[in-house]
Amino acid sequence: MAITVKELQGFLDSAPFHQFMKMKITAADKEAETITISMDYRPEYQRIEGSGEIHGGVIASLVDIAGDFALIHLLGKGVPTINFRVDYLRPAVSTGLTAIAKIRRAGRTIGVVDIDVFNDSGKLIAVGTGCYGTGY
Amino acid sequence: MAITVKELQGFLDSAPFHQFMKMKITAADKEAETITISMDYRPEYQRIEGSGEIHGGVIASLVDIAGDFALIHLLGKGVPTINFRVDYLRPAVSTGLTAIAKIRRAGRTIGVVDIDVFNDSGKLIAVGTGCYGTGY
Amino acid sequence: MAITVKELQGFLDSAPFHQFMKMKITAADKEAETITISMDYRPEYQRIEGSGEIHGGVIASLVDIAGDFALIHLLGKGVPTINFRVDYLRPAVSTGLTAIAKIRRAGRTIGVVDIDVFNDSGKLIAVGTGCYGTGY
Amino acid sequence: MAITVKELQGFLDSAPFHQFMKMKITAADKEAETITISMDYRPEYQRIEGSGEIHGGVIASLVDIAGDFALIHLLGKGVPTINFRVDYLRPAVSTGLTAIAKIRRAGRTIGVVDIDVFNDSGKLIAVGTGCYGTGY
Repeated sequence: MAITVKELQGFLDSAPFHQFMKMKITAADKEAETITISMDYRPEYQRIEGSGEIHGGVIASLVDIAGDFALIHLLGKGVPTINFRVDYLRPAVSTGLTAIAKIRRAGRTIGVVDIDVFNDSGKLIAVGTGCYGTGY
Repeated sequence: MAITVKELQGFLDSAPFHQFMKMKITAADKEAETITISMDYRPEYQRIEGSGEIHGGVIASLVDIAGDFALIHLLGKGVPTINFRVDYLRPAVSTGLTAIAKIRRAGRTIGVVDIDVFNDSGKLIAVGTGCYGTGY
Repeated sequence: MAITVKELQGFLDSAPFHQFMKMKITAADKEAETITISMDYRPEYQRIEGSGEIHGGVIASLVDIAGDFALIHLLGKGVPTINFRVDYLRPAVSTGLTAIAKIRRAGRTIGVVDIDVFNDSGKLIAVGTGCYGTGY
Repeated sequence: MAITVKELQGFLDSAPFHQFMKMKITAADKEAETITISMDYRPEYQRIEGSGEIHGGVIASLVDIAGDFALIHLLGKGVPTINFRVDYLRPAVSTGLTAIAKIRRAGRTIGVVDIDVFNDSGKLIAVGTGCYGTGY
């Protein structure tokens, strides 16, 4: 049940899509029920050629995965995403993104997580809420 | 103002992230206010190694982009995503995905689009709703 | 398991909040997995005094309840709302509202329903998506 | 531009639906960009007769209105709701509800607000995110 950040990173890396995204768990706090996941900018993420702005699809993927891994860390098992919402607040022109996911509820069947996404200067660029199935 | 599917595909391809995703506009109907976008499965999209199941982040990206291009086709200009929601209905084990986006409202400042995502046997695997800024 | 529209209306009326809202099930089709619920305008629903415009909270309640009863009709049991989204498309100045809810997925643990809300001239004024727990 | 809590309460009360809901602004902090709105339980809000559980539609209305008034307080003008999401975390059996709304972004055209809803013992029973049009 007790998962280390290193083990959690290993679990994250086991998914080919996460490998492609090269996401890195930089902090995880079981007391606070938060997890922090960072990712670097890559040219293929651009929304507009030459803009350096990261596409919303990449940000949405980070939101989904950060929320998921907050619950995986707490519960020690995989939890499928049921649905999520993401709101884009500012253009994501940045050398990388950091998502902080905070569990709002981890019930028997449903978990709900809020996710904040920041750019490299700590500015909030997107917020999301994910709903996950914890009963599997 | 009148954009052909070919021109629309050219506009879609101009974004590095879309190029990476190799999304293909397969139909666009300005009367019905619908657009159809397809994408092929690739091993790096997998949620679980060896499963062939496409990750929710990829599906979310398709939802976002299909909704966006339904409005781009209608309005003849780029429209930023404000927010969206995606609900996952079935595991996306498939050789590819097809999204059909239907505009529900294209107002002066806000556009709302419903998006259905199907697997290669025509089964519904996700639904989404996107909200876009049409006033820019 | 087989519920008539009359029995369904009786179940709906058993909730004090539904009674206050005086919602009326006007159609239910188990094949098509749709249900239609109507409600009348009342002055206390107004968003702005004297405007005749129905408040978004009332519309959101209708969205939630219509989605719920689409699943109750299909499954023959109560299903709690997990979460929902509503998008407002036009001001709801109308003598009443009609919601058509269509089930997109009724799985073992989760049901997802799309809901369209129309004014008295048949114009779409809001759309919603609700997620409900079907495993209880 | 500078609105007092009393003036804000007066503006809230000017809407017939808010009057019916008897919502009360109990705190408003322009620095922190938060607002607190409370409402009392009433038997007609019940989801199930005799349960004392407040219906999700009432909670959704509170989410919508609290998010809206956080922006109204900051901006000094009315802002229409574009869309919102609410997640229900626990049954709302309570003598009343308190919503704390916190602005996450107040842009030129769009405002995004997170809303937490608590029961009478301070337990979180729902969370929401609302998107509002600030450009009108």
